[in-house]
Amino acid sequence: MSKFWSPLTASLVPYVPGEQPKDKTYIKLNTNENPYPPSPKVIDAIKGAANADLRLYPDPTCEGLVKAAASYYGLRAEQVFAGNGSDEILAFAFAAFFDPAKTVLFPDITYSFYKVYAKLYGLQTELIALDEQFNVQVEAFHSDNGGIIIPNPNAPTAQLLPLEDIRTLLASNPDQVVIIDEAYIDFGGQSAVELIHDYPNLLVVQTLSKSRSLAGLRVGFAFGSEELIDGLNRIKNSFNSYTMDRLALAGAIAALEDDAYFRDTTEKVIATRERVTEQVKELGFAATDSKANFVFISHKTIAAKDIFVQLRDKGVLVRYFDQPRINEYLRVSIGTDEEMDAFIRALQEIVGE
Amino acid sequence: MSKFWSPLTASLVPYVPGEQPKDKTYIKLNTNENPYPPSPKVIDAIKGAANADLRLYPDPTCEGLVKAAASYYGLRAEQVFAGNGSDEILAFAFAAFFDPAKTVLFPDITYSFYKVYAKLYGLQTELIALDEQFNVQVEAFHSDNGGIIIPNPNAPTAQLLPLEDIRTLLASNPDQVVIIDEAYIDFGGQSAVELIHDYPNLLVVQTLSKSRSLAGLRVGFAFGSEELIDGLNRIKNSFNSYTMDRLALAGAIAALEDDAYFRDTTEKVIATRERVTEQVKELGFAATDSKANFVFISHKTIAAKDIFVQLRDKGVLVRYFDQPRINEYLRVSIGTDEEMDAFIRALQEIVGE
Repeated sequence: MSKFWSPLTASLVPYVPGEQPKDKTYIKLNTNENPYPPSPKVIDAIKGAANADLRLYPDPTCEGLVKAAASYYGLRAEQVFAGNGSDEILAFAFAAFFDPAKTVLFPDITYSFYKVYAKLYGLQTELIALDEQFNVQVEAFHSDNGGIIIPNPNAPTAQLLPLEDIRTLLASNPDQVVIIDEAYIDFGGQSAVELIHDYPNLLVVQTLSKSRSLAGLRVGFAFGSEELIDGLNRIKNSFNSYTMDRLALAGAIAALEDDAYFRDTTEKVIATRERVTEQVKELGFAATDSKANFVFISHKTIAAKDIFVQLRDKGVLVRYFDQPRINEYLRVSIGTDEEMDAFIRALQEIVGE
Repeated sequence: MSKFWSPLTASLVPYVPGEQPKDKTYIKLNTNENPYPPSPKVIDAIKGAANADLRLYPDPTCEGLVKAAASYYGLRAEQVFAGNGSDEILAFAFAAFFDPAKTVLFPDITYSFYKVYAKLYGLQTELIALDEQFNVQVEAFHSDNGGIIIPNPNAPTAQLLPLEDIRTLLASNPDQVVIIDEAYIDFGGQSAVELIHDYPNLLVVQTLSKSRSLAGLRVGFAFGSEELIDGLNRIKNSFNSYTMDRLALAGAIAALEDDAYFRDTTEKVIATRERVTEQVKELGFAATDSKANFVFISHKTIAAKDIFVQLRDKGVLVRYFDQPRINEYLRVSIGTDEEMDAFIRALQEIVGE
């Protein structure tokens, strides 16, 4: 604590990113990165943008990228916002749309940054319990709220909420903004983007970090009605007019253009996920029905924390959450087939099969 | 106005960046960009970082860049914060240190983003008048305040505040944070960085946008006591853990390493500024004593707005501020010698000499 901190600064409980240990080289299955490199066309586009024009400010409206994303998703440019990763966009959205006079609703088991944003903006929150099978229960999201946010698929449970449930939620909350955080949607889910034409209260947030293998480039999008996009721009332009650098803008456009590469790598991740899910079940694990680039697994007899520690000793990093309801689960990112073979071999040693 | 906007969103008056017109090619002297390209070593470093590792998150602590900046300025890593441009860092600093229960002080003529940040964080502000010659009067910054921010050199006046005055301000406000925004310090001023060893309430903010020709890369720094850097990190990690992408980190380290290039281009800008200052004086302009990469000039008889419009017609973009006290001035960024020759020729036509 410092006397120079504002009351806000003193009150915060900052987010803690997944560990990036530097002591040795691990098989890194702990931060849901894509095991495949970005498209070669992305690399070329970035190298092409590494030129004398870096002396000039980037386009603060991100016009080229916004238009590329609009074209890709069949939207108008006015329905698209681009930002410095979906985390930044979520922060802007919490400030732009959520009402401090009411409570903001999100699942009890979900992306742990949501409660951090809420603290930052002085928002009250209410956690809505997932059911016993970790399904989001949309009927439990009562309408007396200051906004709703749900990841789809949810993290770390990996489970998908059907579009019909999202439609129900949007229709029953016509005066509140509902944010669907689709960080993992490309690994087997159906995006809610099409619903923005019917529901002006829907904001869909996506990222290039996972399915486009660009966690290191920091690019995210929000899709929604023009009034929601305007709201995001008001916050952004009161914070930092130039959130995206020239290299990220160039690389992101190239990523959207190389759809074949995206489909190919995404299909590989999905195929590996399905194979790994079967294999861990044979080793005595239960697994949720994942539509993400990770699996969420629990062994019938061995404690999750023990498995986590033993995997780490064997050079395999996964994510363990020491919190109620999920402290017998491990979240395991889908790596290459070779990495997952090593993960399965390590598990076999641990469970003694 | 939208019913979906939070009260905050509705209350904001967002910043308006300098125009980036697309109708034709201008000699662009309106956004204080450096006329020289970044160091070739920066370009090489970025191209080298455009590789498969972009699939991985960047280091959220920016350790490599923080250490490079600490080494450059003779500081410990704990005294350095790196961010996505100095605008983002200023936004974080307003939230981290300024007290909403008191008034935040800054000059009446200054960087126009300060009042935007204040609105974003619900801060009351009091403008402290520059004297008739546009000098900051440190004795006017009374101690009953919730924080102070001053650019040095000031913008758009271009004038420098001596370190002794900053020392006075720091000593007379031991319980408040004083931010010195040194976006333009490398063009003839002396940085206050050395004072952070004596004053735990000092935060110095710098950027690679101007003197390192990297406005398009979005990199800024803050230097201060460990408790201030901790405060910035608390805000950052409640907002977005990964504000800087891998390319910006690599390019920024290379920029700090190529000091010879930096000194060479900075000296060229200064030499051009001194020459242009003499030439405009011969054309009937008054000019402030600039220590920045722009000049702030006023003609003895012709209205600034008329000159602005005529320059624009002649293909030269400068910045005009339609606000009290400075509405007879133009802010003109220092371009290459060729660009400034064209600017002077255009002025000669306008003033009829």
